[in-house]
Order: sequence, then structure tokens, then C-alpha cells
Amino acid sequence: MSGFVLHPRLAADTALLADWDLSRVLLMNDSRFAWLILVPRRAGVAELHDLGPLDRSVLVEEVARASAALKAVTGAVKINIGALGNVVAQLHFHVVARNPGDAAWPGPVWGYGGPVPYGAAARDGLLARLTARLA
Amino acid sequence: MSGFVLHPRLAADTALLADWDLSRVLLMNDSRFAWLILVPRRAGVAELHDLGPLDRSVLVEEVARASAALKAVTGAVKINIGALGNVVAQLHFHVVARNPGDAAWPGPVWGYGGPVPYGAAARDGLLARLTARLA
Repeated sequence: MSGFVLHPRLAADTALLADWDLSRVLLMNDSRFAWLILVPRRAGVAELHDLGPLDRSVLVEEVARASAALKAVTGAVKINIGALGNVVAQLHFHVVARNPGDAAWPGPVWGYGGPVPYGAAARDGLLARLTARLA
Repeated sequence: MSGFVLHPRLAADTALLADWDLSRVLLMNDSRFAWLILVPRRAGVAELHDLGPLDRSVLVEEVARASAALKAVTGAVKINIGALGNVVAQLHFHVVARNPGDAAWPGPVWGYGGPVPYGAAARDGLLARLTARLA
């Protein structure tokens, strides 16, 4: 894991949920959408195909784990998964709970309006529910 | 693979590139972006976490293979990967070549304007280049 440093933009926009075997798991500070970000702790990786196959096999399980937990905790109708990297190139996977009628439905959340930060209690409550589900 | 039927919306919007071990690989008929769609040939699957772990390990390798080939053939600056399913619930992964200055840059392609269909020669040329790269 040597050399990994979380991109400052990702650090500024999120709160830490946990470090898993490969990924740092972050909660996006945007109360419009329950939204996790998984960042593989590898330096210099921008594309999924830049990771090694063993890392990819761990990553896909971690994304699936985040997806299942987020759906269970929020009751969302659909989970959206994305790895774009047009603005922040460091490889990171978004896992977002979506529902008909949410701010961006049925479009994508990326680039849609501005974030609405959580209050500390709401943020900590969601982090606690996710942590309990994932235990 | 019994019971798998490609969603008619995906069939209507794409041309067939190949069937890989797990996924049907399709070229989106939108000349604004070089854009592949991978659909695991499993019935009744909407979320990544609905697939079994063995299927997931194959899927992530197939997505990486599509990503590397698309980047090599197009010379794109960045590959975008997404699985949304807000409109078509059947699990499918988008793999999209992106460049600064393309129609939607740096935003996501999903829901951005209307598709600009290929002419037959341009579509077949891209399919041939991708097929050669993947051989």
C-alpha cells in the first residue's frame, strides 16, 4: 500500500467509514443521496485495467458489499455504481442509493447540482447504521 | 444461462460485438462517444450484489478487458465505467471512452442529450478495430 495518498478533493468531500482489505470506504458529504466512495489503496492507479487481477477480484467484492449494505440500510430502489475519474483521476468507485423522486432521478448524480452537506448528527447516524450493518 | 433475454431497449440501442464467457458485449449506437455495454447473461439480475461471487470475478475481468481495449483503440484520455439501471433495470455495465472537449465532458454521458447514430461504415469500422484488438 506504500505511496497511497487519498486525493485531497475526495478527502474534503467525504467522511471516513472504514478501511477494508483493499479500499478506503468514504461517505460522501451530500445528504441528497446516500453515497459511498471506495478508493483502492494503491498509488498511481486511474483505470480499472491498471489494477492487478487479484486487486480487481477484491475490489468487485468490496463494491458488492457496499452496494448490498447501502441498499439494506436505506431501502433504496436501485444502487448506482460508477467510476468516472474525469475530474479526480485517482481510481474510485461511487456506490449510490437511488430512488424515484430523488433530486437527480432517473439521471446520474455526478455533476448534478451542488452537494447539501449533512448535519453532524445525521452524518454520524448514517455512518453508525452502515457500520452496524457491515459488522 | 437459461432464461436470459437481452432487454429490448438495450437491443434497440446497440450492435453486437461478441458474447464473452459471461457478458454479451454491445456497441452503443451513439457516435458522440465510443461506448460499450456489457450485460451478464443471467436472468433476473439487477444489482451487482445479486450476482454470485464467481460471476462477479468474471465480470470485473470482462469490464477491465473492455476498458483496456477501448482505451487502446480510441486513444481516449479516460474510461468511464457505470452501472445505473434507473431506466433499464437489467444489470449492465457501461464502458465509455472520454476525452476533454467531448460532448458531455467532464460530466457523465448518461442522460446527456440525444444519441447521434453511426453510419453503417463507421459503426462496422469501430466494431472491426475492437474485434481485432480483442483477438
